[in-house]
Amino acid sequence: MTQDTPIPADVLISEVGPRDGLQSVKATMPTADKFKWIDALVAAGVREIEVASFVPARLLPQMADAADVVAHAVRHPGVTVMALVPNLRGAEAALRAGAHKLTLPVSASRAHSLANVRKTPEEMVEEVRAIVQLRDDMAPGVKIEAGISTAFGCTLQGLVPEDEVIRLALMCAEAGADESGLSDTVGYANPAQVRRLFRRLRSELGAKAGAAHMHNTRGLGLANCLAAWDEGVRTFDSSLGGLGGCPYAPGASGNVVTEDLVFMFEAMGVATGISLEKIIAARTPLAAGLPGEPLYGMTPDAGLPKGFTPSR
Amino acid sequence: MTQDTPIPADVLISEVGPRDGLQSVKATMPTADKFKWIDALVAAGVREIEVASFVPARLLPQMADAADVVAHAVRHPGVTVMALVPNLRGAEAALRAGAHKLTLPVSASRAHSLANVRKTPEEMVEEVRAIVQLRDDMAPGVKIEAGISTAFGCTLQGLVPEDEVIRLALMCAEAGADESGLSDTVGYANPAQVRRLFRRLRSELGAKAGAAHMHNTRGLGLANCLAAWDEGVRTFDSSLGGLGGCPYAPGASGNVVTEDLVFMFEAMGVATGISLEKIIAARTPLAAGLPGEPLYGMTPDAGLPKGFTPSR
Repeated sequence: MTQDTPIPADVLISEVGPRDGLQSVKATMPTADKFKWIDALVAAGVREIEVASFVPARLLPQMADAADVVAHAVRHPGVTVMALVPNLRGAEAALRAGAHKLTLPVSASRAHSLANVRKTPEEMVEEVRAIVQLRDDMAPGVKIEAGISTAFGCTLQGLVPEDEVIRLALMCAEAGADESGLSDTVGYANPAQVRRLFRRLRSELGAKAGAAHMHNTRGLGLANCLAAWDEGVRTFDSSLGGLGGCPYAPGASGNVVTEDLVFMFEAMGVATGISLEKIIAARTPLAAGLPGEPLYGMTPDAGLPKGFTPSR
Repeated sequence: MTQDTPIPADVLISEVGPRDGLQSVKATMPTADKFKWIDALVAAGVREIEVASFVPARLLPQMADAADVVAHAVRHPGVTVMALVPNLRGAEAALRAGAHKLTLPVSASRAHSLANVRKTPEEMVEEVRAIVQLRDDMAPGVKIEAGISTAFGCTLQGLVPEDEVIRLALMCAEAGADESGLSDTVGYANPAQVRRLFRRLRSELGAKAGAAHMHNTRGLGLANCLAAWDEGVRTFDSSLGGLGGCPYAPGASGNVVTEDLVFMFEAMGVATGISLEKIIAARTPLAAGLPGEPLYGMTPDAGLPKGFTPSR
């Protein structure tokens, strides 16, 4: 199912749909359909996929097959298989399943952190430290990413001080995280803020500065990705069909839509390594596994421009 | 109906809905409703409005009341009232009605130009020259803008050479147009192309370089506006509710949505002079005058972020 000749890429599009998307919808996608969807993503050229969340099945039945999904995904050579882990216990299960990379949500908003994981941000940093220790013991080759959530604002507390975001990213790096990325969990970010925060993050963390995870709640998702790209960010999270990411309203996707993001970069001459035709085709297995779920994306609706040529 | 204290602005949002939007929908908005909508736009702080197109009523019955609408709009002090004119005859009617500014569509795509106005781009430049002469005779204070349409690509001919776009903008300036702007008529533009073309336009035309008229057909509308802003563009066309601009698909607005564009700039700290609450409220008279017509916009759906403060 992998591409015959992988295209060298200027930017890494990290698909989060199978985790972020599926855990946000009510229905549970059957495991076999998850496999087909992941295979189609890989066939399109996607090289990093967040495939599951390791949380108790009673809390998120959509993720009960997390270990099976990881075991399937890692069979694709050249693909980095990520899993979200909220705590040490989840990390242990994800490492045992064979995930290549773990992502840990660390909220910069104290209110959001307490509501979401019942821990303060500082307590989550200690969880990062414990998971790094476990990784060192169990699977030293695995990468650990801290995703600083609510980095651009919070629906509970409103403003999140930028100093607080950077301080937390530094604490995660000091605790041993290989990368710290910034997430616009609730779609509050604007391009000027994205530029300021990623500039600071890259200046403070250097090579440990991680991905941009943007939402499209107020229509600014691609503009914010462009702003992050301008600052040197080279990894972007997005979701096929804009699935997940707490959509607020009809027509309003939460996560940035992978298809539109790939179109933007390819049109700009920035190679994503992803085939636009095949990534649009990957909507078919997604739709088949989640009947009736609305999919977003303007490029799939409008089609490619006449005479359009991808970046290379 | 004007604001008590106009807010100084860093950027000019030029609302095109009453022209571009209304001429793209099937229904004809009653004149009284147009007045209410324009009044609400002005009350929100909008300082430039394209209110009508001066074309024969048998071709566009939606615009049959163009002269009345201009006469109403010009009563608002401090507002620049624009009209689209495709030819000399339309220009004469618009000048007689009292428009402050005329905009002329000049297509950079020969195929689009012939299909749209049955003239070559060069013949349209001669029309610009004739209209400038008429303006000099009838109303020397009126400004004339050439809108270079299909500047970023064309559904008929595909690629439009960038040299051709710049050459045409220069020809319009030489023919006497006060400004030449660039329009992404069919939603093909990408941020890299927007930067290249506006950089060249501003370098070649200086103060005569005009507005960015972007579409959101493939979701890149705001990213393209951001790219143009970065290049120094300070006037942006947009449409309330994303009305008009040849929408291709459900959920896909054609024109950039004014509400989302104002939100992006205000969130960035760039003053638009427009009240977000009042511009969202201006959707009410628009909807009342066009019952059943879908309105787009993600900021109106999602609401403003908690703790959001406008630029000043």
